[in-house]
Amino acid sequence: MPKTIAVIGGTGNEGPGLALRWAKSGQYQVIIGSRQQEKAERVAAELNARLGEDLIRGLVNPDAAAAADLAVLTVPYSAHAPTLKSIRAGLTGKILVDVTVPLQPPKVSRVYIPPGGSATAEAQALLGDDVRVVAAFQNVGAAHLGDPDHPIDCDVLVCGDDKEAKAEAIALAEAAGMRGLDAGPLQNAAVAEGLTAVLIAINKRYKVKAAGIKITGLESGVESTE
Amino acid sequence: MPKTIAVIGGTGNEGPGLALRWAKSGQYQVIIGSRQQEKAERVAAELNARLGEDLIRGLVNPDAAAAADLAVLTVPYSAHAPTLKSIRAGLTGKILVDVTVPLQPPKVSRVYIPPGGSATAEAQALLGDDVRVVAAFQNVGAAHLGDPDHPIDCDVLVCGDDKEAKAEAIALAEAAGMRGLDAGPLQNAAVAEGLTAVLIAINKRYKVKAAGIKITGLESGVESTE
Repeated sequence: MPKTIAVIGGTGNEGPGLALRWAKSGQYQVIIGSRQQEKAERVAAELNARLGEDLIRGLVNPDAAAAADLAVLTVPYSAHAPTLKSIRAGLTGKILVDVTVPLQPPKVSRVYIPPGGSATAEAQALLGDDVRVVAAFQNVGAAHLGDPDHPIDCDVLVCGDDKEAKAEAIALAEAAGMRGLDAGPLQNAAVAEGLTAVLIAINKRYKVKAAGIKITGLESGVESTE
Repeated sequence: MPKTIAVIGGTGNEGPGLALRWAKSGQYQVIIGSRQQEKAERVAAELNARLGEDLIRGLVNPDAAAAADLAVLTVPYSAHAPTLKSIRAGLTGKILVDVTVPLQPPKVSRVYIPPGGSATAEAQALLGDDVRVVAAFQNVGAAHLGDPDHPIDCDVLVCGDDKEAKAEAIALAEAAGMRGLDAGPLQNAAVAEGLTAVLIAINKRYKVKAAGIKITGLESGVESTE
């Protein structure tokens, strides 16, 4: 039986595209989580219409987290702590993949390092040791995510202190059509997150829409990550 | 007359390769700076032997900074503040390109955000407003730098608050055979610097020697940066 993923805050920019790709891969059962049941159901229905199958369901965030094997958090930084508190009870023993980028609007092309070192480190501190938190997917722009047939020219940097959790996130990247790379310990999430502000600065400066990053120099030595 | 660059701390890992490439480009006069005159002269002589021409000279760091139009700082983080203090007098009105990566040996695959936000921000604070500091070249591994005919599959992220200084650093990247990109304000140097620890983590994890980064998605929109 495939694992169930809850995409918490899954009605925003990044969530629906990721949910669509994971559902389409056939490797996961997918739940869209939202603060409102209605909104979760509406977005799930829209994605199912695009898939031509009822593969995705919608639930309020706490129920989505409780029903899932692993959770992916895609919320604006301003909603990060409150959302984590609302789903904490359902996450015990599970893996949380944190996609949150700590930006300070309106200065979204400036790197902001939050008090806890990174959003992901703050999530780990808030959730405690019973949840394994990894950072991933911050640098993948929403521009092409929603079209599952559009290739995404961006690697997914995965940072965390738990090997198994990192392997899960790398598998999620691959299921969504991207290369996931183990980018070191949780402490490195500061860079994976901050790189998003750098990419936004580059988008503005060079008048493009979906600057991304690729890690080079791996050709000779990539280990299997599965 | 070509501009003169001083490569401060130019006898280490990164400095000689950059000096060689800039001298070879014909676009710059190059000075290797070191704490010791003898060592500076020895490295300059070695590089001139490789070039087949006497294009590079060696001076102690303060003299190198004073003699140059612009300076590039390539020292370990532990030598960052003392070196800056030693060259400050010679830098007034000039541009400093800071290549320093704030690593905390032996944990060099962990991102470390220094108290001042980044090494580059600390340099700017130490030098004051009379020197324009930009961050660049942190992610370029020394592995292939010393062979000027070896292509380097890595972009140079340039972060700073002064447009002209960023343009100088982008021109330096191009003269050394790399693509330089305006990656936003000085505040973004935290990511350009920290990315080096991420690349070291990737080198270790995937058993490669020269992981680098490329910015993708620019094909349609790159502005001329000159």
